[in-house]
Amino acid sequence: MARGEEAVVQQQQQNRQIVLKEYIIGGDSPKESHFGAASATIELKVEPGSNAVVFKNLYLSCDPYVRTRMSRSAYNVADPGDFDFGPFPLGSLISGLGVSKVVDSGHPDYQKGDLVWGTAAWEEYSVIQDPIGFFKITDDADVPLSYYTGILGMPGMSAYFGFFDACAPNKGDRVFVSAASGAVGQLVGQFAKLAGCYVVGSAGTKQKVELLKNKLGFDEAFNYKEVDEDLDAALKRYFPEGIDIYFDGVGGKMLDAVLPNMRVRGRITICGMISQYNLEKLEGVHNLIHILPRRVRLQGFVVFDYFHSYGEFLEKMLGWIKEGKIVYVEDVVEGLESGPAALVGLFSGRNVGKQVVVLARE
Amino acid sequence: MARGEEAVVQQQQQNRQIVLKEYIIGGDSPKESHFGAASATIELKVEPGSNAVVFKNLYLSCDPYVRTRMSRSAYNVADPGDFDFGPFPLGSLISGLGVSKVVDSGHPDYQKGDLVWGTAAWEEYSVIQDPIGFFKITDDADVPLSYYTGILGMPGMSAYFGFFDACAPNKGDRVFVSAASGAVGQLVGQFAKLAGCYVVGSAGTKQKVELLKNKLGFDEAFNYKEVDEDLDAALKRYFPEGIDIYFDGVGGKMLDAVLPNMRVRGRITICGMISQYNLEKLEGVHNLIHILPRRVRLQGFVVFDYFHSYGEFLEKMLGWIKEGKIVYVEDVVEGLESGPAALVGLFSGRNVGKQVVVLARE
Repeated sequence: MARGEEAVVQQQQQNRQIVLKEYIIGGDSPKESHFGAASATIELKVEPGSNAVVFKNLYLSCDPYVRTRMSRSAYNVADPGDFDFGPFPLGSLISGLGVSKVVDSGHPDYQKGDLVWGTAAWEEYSVIQDPIGFFKITDDADVPLSYYTGILGMPGMSAYFGFFDACAPNKGDRVFVSAASGAVGQLVGQFAKLAGCYVVGSAGTKQKVELLKNKLGFDEAFNYKEVDEDLDAALKRYFPEGIDIYFDGVGGKMLDAVLPNMRVRGRITICGMISQYNLEKLEGVHNLIHILPRRVRLQGFVVFDYFHSYGEFLEKMLGWIKEGKIVYVEDVVEGLESGPAALVGLFSGRNVGKQVVVLARE
Repeated sequence: MARGEEAVVQQQQQNRQIVLKEYIIGGDSPKESHFGAASATIELKVEPGSNAVVFKNLYLSCDPYVRTRMSRSAYNVADPGDFDFGPFPLGSLISGLGVSKVVDSGHPDYQKGDLVWGTAAWEEYSVIQDPIGFFKITDDADVPLSYYTGILGMPGMSAYFGFFDACAPNKGDRVFVSAASGAVGQLVGQFAKLAGCYVVGSAGTKQKVELLKNKLGFDEAFNYKEVDEDLDAALKRYFPEGIDIYFDGVGGKMLDAVLPNMRVRGRITICGMISQYNLEKLEGVHNLIHILPRRVRLQGFVVFDYFHSYGEFLEKMLGWIKEGKIVYVEDVVEGLESGPAALVGLFSGRNVGKQVVVLARE
């Protein structure tokens, strides 16, 4: 073997991957069996003259929208809009957001050692031709890199723009947050307090309810599973004068219960509908009529519309983190092979806080 | 009898009235039997020193919201807001909007012979202490007085502000209007054409569909009763690229069918939900999830919020009427005793155009 050949061989690496093995059909829940493990050989150097970048994927973000892309059923939220929410091709890599490190680059904007967050396939290494839509991680703040999958990434922006822009809060507003201990909800609650609002959260375990009240600063919190038979009564208990802002991460029965409890000119921001993603036939919402006399606004919210304002967001959030005004709860699991169970766990509420998968710490 | 006594007697008058005889219960439709005829003696002169006004009611407006006040059931749209949408007290006068003439006045703002539109009880004459919220009819335009129950009154303002403000139309937008030949819908369609939009209306008879296409300038129209089994297919036929604006007067199944056909950043203005007012259990809307990836906004719209802008509206509308740019279709019935059947008829679609009841022409 000539020396040159040897050098090339040394750059090749086994690359473990997670792919979509089967579509989730009808009203099924996502299971680990829908995912498959795969492996490929990858070249960790870019071709001379190419503008490709080789990324080592460090942290993967588990987000509910990823599950919707694992189904091709009619109630998929796939959309002809400007971001691809459509189904993954069968057998293709699962893909979401994550934090990655540049291992090699032929692109002038990326240098070896750079850290970025953006689209990340569920594999150890990714080669991307002419990468676009990645954010450089340049701050020297003393924050965990995993934060760029959560508080400083897409869920953080969802909470920030979804609350401050789409919900248009006023001091004294009565705010309700569902999925309140999740990646987005825990921040919405803290933002509501910063904005001088009264805020109540719902979550699915006693532990999460305690977290909301004792660590995350919610005024009140309740376990929706304990009041499931009468959500209306629970809402009336915590909001005797009604709700000005509902930040919705769940849809379905909770949304239906909220509608008759909205105040005049209330705002509902629909950021997610996790209760509906595993249903073959979506639940009917019966109380929409209440938005009419109450002049309520419902707004479908997609954070990708705000990515151009990342700089504004990052500066604000880093400031609040440094000042100790905002805290963040993560649920971190280790290893690519833990990814499927972690994503599946979102739908049973197994995670406590933002679900992150660590592939490597550097 | 002294001369003074005789004069007083001459001012007394029998005053025929329509009252709420029975509440509409559960899922019942309004029937003529829910209304009662009554009669009272009324003094057509105000007491010296009083600031009351005696109105002769000329035209009464039949509007769907009046029916919602004839029920005290849980799905009533009654609201703690700033306008009274609550149930009428049993036995009290039916009340809505109308055109009236001042017969006598102790109030400095009202002179005998003045014409006004505003709240009007369903009776021949009304005495109102210190009247507020009435609009003087001062223009010398050659328009029928009945127009102030429709195109120049509340329904006209609903269409004008509901479309131009709440729907935020852009040239080229694809607009869908339900209840399109009604008091409001026929104007929304014409406004959409003035704004350079493509507009399709739905209505419930062949005659109304013809009216929409041949008189009111809609690009297309269809009879929803003929496509009831597949509204989705009908919408896809008329909107192969989706709907930017849905002006909703009906709610229920139509709203549900529209949701998956909305375009990204589409706007739905909920101005009425006439399909739901007679149901004991409201229909479930199953497709709300589509507002999420499509960033759709649903806005509950109440025209009373815009009454402070009546002057702007009136000037614009009178201009368009004089220029022949806007036409209006009315369905006029004669006599107070025709009122109950006329209101009931709104719910079977018996009326063609704005339903008006004439009590007197001057």
